[in-house]
Amino acid sequence: MEPVERIVPHFQEELAALKERLLVMGGLAEERVRLAVEALVSTDMALIDRVLEGDGPINQLHIEIDSRAFKMLALYQPMAADLRAIVAAVKINTDLERVGDLAVNIAEAAKRYVQHRPVKPLIDIPRMAEIAQRMLRDALDAFVRRDDGLARAVLNEDDKLDALKTQVFRELLTYMLQDPATIEPALDLILISRHLERIGDHATNVAEDVIFMVLAKDVRHHAGEADLA
Amino acid sequence: MEPVERIVPHFQEELAALKERLLVMGGLAEERVRLAVEALVSTDMALIDRVLEGDGPINQLHIEIDSRAFKMLALYQPMAADLRAIVAAVKINTDLERVGDLAVNIAEAAKRYVQHRPVKPLIDIPRMAEIAQRMLRDALDAFVRRDDGLARAVLNEDDKLDALKTQVFRELLTYMLQDPATIEPALDLILISRHLERIGDHATNVAEDVIFMVLAKDVRHHAGEADLA
Repeated sequence: MEPVERIVPHFQEELAALKERLLVMGGLAEERVRLAVEALVSTDMALIDRVLEGDGPINQLHIEIDSRAFKMLALYQPMAADLRAIVAAVKINTDLERVGDLAVNIAEAAKRYVQHRPVKPLIDIPRMAEIAQRMLRDALDAFVRRDDGLARAVLNEDDKLDALKTQVFRELLTYMLQDPATIEPALDLILISRHLERIGDHATNVAEDVIFMVLAKDVRHHAGEADLA
Repeated sequence: MEPVERIVPHFQEELAALKERLLVMGGLAEERVRLAVEALVSTDMALIDRVLEGDGPINQLHIEIDSRAFKMLALYQPMAADLRAIVAAVKINTDLERVGDLAVNIAEAAKRYVQHRPVKPLIDIPRMAEIAQRMLRDALDAFVRRDDGLARAVLNEDDKLDALKTQVFRELLTYMLQDPATIEPALDLILISRHLERIGDHATNVAEDVIFMVLAKDVRHHAGEADLA
């Protein structure tokens, strides 16, 4: 009996567990972004504080997932698609942890923002948050289902986020130029829109990692045709 | 004759080559940050354009280094310290590529900034750039020399950058409140200071990866005492 045959199913079980933990982490990160923007829109100081103090579970998962991935690399020495899946998991783990940090950054800016008179009703920022959360969710679904088509769809969404960010910037600049009392709070909204854009960038990174994992092709920097594995 | 004995020195040669390529990439990234800030300070539009158009070499290295690391994982199936070195290289590669992107972001903001009357003589922003570049250089030196002491020194530098960022923000806010003509250019300086802070964050990531690689200890999220490998 080959020892390899006993090991392989075990590896697949651990890979499934690793993916499950990444999904849990992604769900937490997405939820924290949602809560941070909800707290901003509803000027709910208690909710802002909850987001500011609540990054413990994501940070714990960050360490746990890295540890799982390292042990799997060391124990099973996976090849080809399995190896690409583990390395993708390590990279995705980093991106999700940063998304958690960005939820904190949004809450920090929200905490300053709610101390001023509101600049305007917030419409584009919640829309940006929705797009960014959906991108993140789709990118993780694409990872778990090894769906490079869905991952490509995520890459296309990023343009919408960039367009909204530019629109938010221009509109807020107009407010700032017309009324200096809006300068401080408008600055915080601009920062929040940039944090949301960066969450979209992290979802884009995840989607690119999924495409590499599935197709063994690097789609970054327009290197789509170079076979790397 | 053990085949392993023939393979091991080959692995160490390839690891040395991988580190060398990461140093080249780090040098390029650092140089592009330096040029972007120099172009801002000297309002040199030709230099700004050079930074905007010059991210090809870093992007090529990004793909090449990932490809080398993947091949080494697949071919040599390294264990323990060697495995940690390769995974660290993959992560550091991602951080350096983002630093290259941030140099472009700085140049984009500089391009807008130089179209306005200067808000003030720039002192703190070049100082932030120097600190961020030094952090990056030290973190990469720590990686190549496996020097966890130097990596820890990098972590301490990050506070200086955060303090300068806050100082820049407060000072520019004062200008914006006093004179609306400064709002647009001051906004770009605030964005540039945030880009520089993020370069420091990437250097911090590299330093944390070095500490994990050397000590097999995760120092992120105050998990310093948990042994992970």
